[in-house]
Amino acid sequence: MSSLVVVGSLAYDAVETPHGKVDRMLGGACTYISLSASYFTKVSIVGVVGDDFASEDVDLLQSHHVDVEGMERVPGKTFFWSGRYTPDMNDRETLVTDLNVFATFEPKLPASYRGIPYLFLGNIQPTLQRNVRAQMSNPRLTGGDTMNYWISDHRADLLETIRGWNFLLVNDHEARQLSGKTNLKQAAEAIMAMGPAVVIIKRGEYGALLFVRHNGSLRWFAAPGYLLDQVFDPTGAGDCFAGGFMGYLASRNLDLSHADTDPQEMLRAVIYGSVMGSFCCEKFGVDRFRTLTRAEVDARFQEFQDATAF
Amino acid sequence: MSSLVVVGSLAYDAVETPHGKVDRMLGGACTYISLSASYFTKVSIVGVVGDDFASEDVDLLQSHHVDVEGMERVPGKTFFWSGRYTPDMNDRETLVTDLNVFATFEPKLPASYRGIPYLFLGNIQPTLQRNVRAQMSNPRLTGGDTMNYWISDHRADLLETIRGWNFLLVNDHEARQLSGKTNLKQAAEAIMAMGPAVVIIKRGEYGALLFVRHNGSLRWFAAPGYLLDQVFDPTGAGDCFAGGFMGYLASRNLDLSHADTDPQEMLRAVIYGSVMGSFCCEKFGVDRFRTLTRAEVDARFQEFQDATAF
Repeated sequence: MSSLVVVGSLAYDAVETPHGKVDRMLGGACTYISLSASYFTKVSIVGVVGDDFASEDVDLLQSHHVDVEGMERVPGKTFFWSGRYTPDMNDRETLVTDLNVFATFEPKLPASYRGIPYLFLGNIQPTLQRNVRAQMSNPRLTGGDTMNYWISDHRADLLETIRGWNFLLVNDHEARQLSGKTNLKQAAEAIMAMGPAVVIIKRGEYGALLFVRHNGSLRWFAAPGYLLDQVFDPTGAGDCFAGGFMGYLASRNLDLSHADTDPQEMLRAVIYGSVMGSFCCEKFGVDRFRTLTRAEVDARFQEFQDATAF
Repeated sequence: MSSLVVVGSLAYDAVETPHGKVDRMLGGACTYISLSASYFTKVSIVGVVGDDFASEDVDLLQSHHVDVEGMERVPGKTFFWSGRYTPDMNDRETLVTDLNVFATFEPKLPASYRGIPYLFLGNIQPTLQRNVRAQMSNPRLTGGDTMNYWISDHRADLLETIRGWNFLLVNDHEARQLSGKTNLKQAAEAIMAMGPAVVIIKRGEYGALLFVRHNGSLRWFAAPGYLLDQVFDPTGAGDCFAGGFMGYLASRNLDLSHADTDPQEMLRAVIYGSVMGSFCCEKFGVDRFRTLTRAEVDARFQEFQDATAF
């Protein structure tokens, strides 16, 4: 089992869903990714928080054996985001984005992180993602995600950044925006030409697609979304997907740059992504991770197997 | 291998997609369902056409061994539909609906059809669907589909009709409309309480969900949509899904009313539905079925297996 560095936002969120309203809860991509990945591998985080970041939130991360040495604490307030979901929860409206201390974030890696073999670059400015990568000695596997703003307004910078990645994780809108192609197979192929050997396209409740080049030809794989009895709060589900995916790869010491990497292992990683995303939706914010066990994770992986094997 | 009766519309369509425009081509749910199902089983159709129905269109059906004894020809024009797809082809606008001879359709089954064990009731008025069912002696398996108009404006009639069905095939909007539930698992459960033991929910390009009760509990299965290099014309894809699903069930003599029916066999039927729907989109109208072979169908079924097994 290899260990993993995760960089991204640490935040407080206010969220309103048809099931209720929470005024302040732990959030941020780095938080969700690392909690999710912690079920598979040892995680070390890089991020910034303000002096309002609560010690019980540090405790939650540490109870999942997350190394917080790279969590910088600076004067000011932690990144704050507030949003409201539509009744069907397939869309949301952002009400407030206060970057606060995140606005001047300059990721600095502790010396102890530099030799860690797995690196996940969460959605931050592409220059900063590159900067983090440059501080690592020689990771076996580097990948990450991005968002519409970097694709449209920092395109050249983003392209320079992802050129060195082994995989890119995007949603369907981002894949189309980045590639200029409507057809997702064509979009994935265009993104592979930008550098990443593996492309994962998330489709929300519909699951995810995995694209790899295997023995010279493009292959695709599909993972369904889990059918929950009730979606309570989808905040962080995409980040938990990333954590499950990357965590599984690290736990299996997988190296995507080798042409002979078994695509089924990558599909299993995508399924674990779907598994972790589904648990995330069962409670508000990170609450599900306060009680979730690895046995529950594996039982749901088995449910995915039972729901798709024919 | 059992044989199958299909009732539904026989039509001419005019279609415009980003890939081109066709002013008049063979269409109608019954046409697509029966061509698709003909790759698996012997199909006998019930429908009505006008005196403009071309002999080469009858020839196409007969070249697929479709029994057209139940195709009534009456004075007047065949049902005509015209539509235009949005650039991403996930939505379409209906430009013209001329029911013509279909407006007074009164399905009459030839005596030779009455003992056929499989019955698919395509989307027509629920009273007519019931009327067709009543003319059959005792089919082993009855199922069909419906649409938003019957759900909203003929609800009591529709409920009386589907009460006797073994399965209902709907899309996600229809499932939500019929059940009043947003969550698809809850929607399927509510529909099962209306009669059908099996519910299949189509999700367009995202594939389909299958719900069955097995050993007393609700189980769900997911089939992805096939990733085409290019979607040429989605007209009829849902009907071809129905044909592949029902055709496979008939070819395997499956009986959904038995509690011990293997759910994996039903999932294979759903996958064959996805396979046939995907071929339909590759050319305008029914054109793909002029050349499609069973070997191509089975090769694509294998592709689905390769894309989902983990």
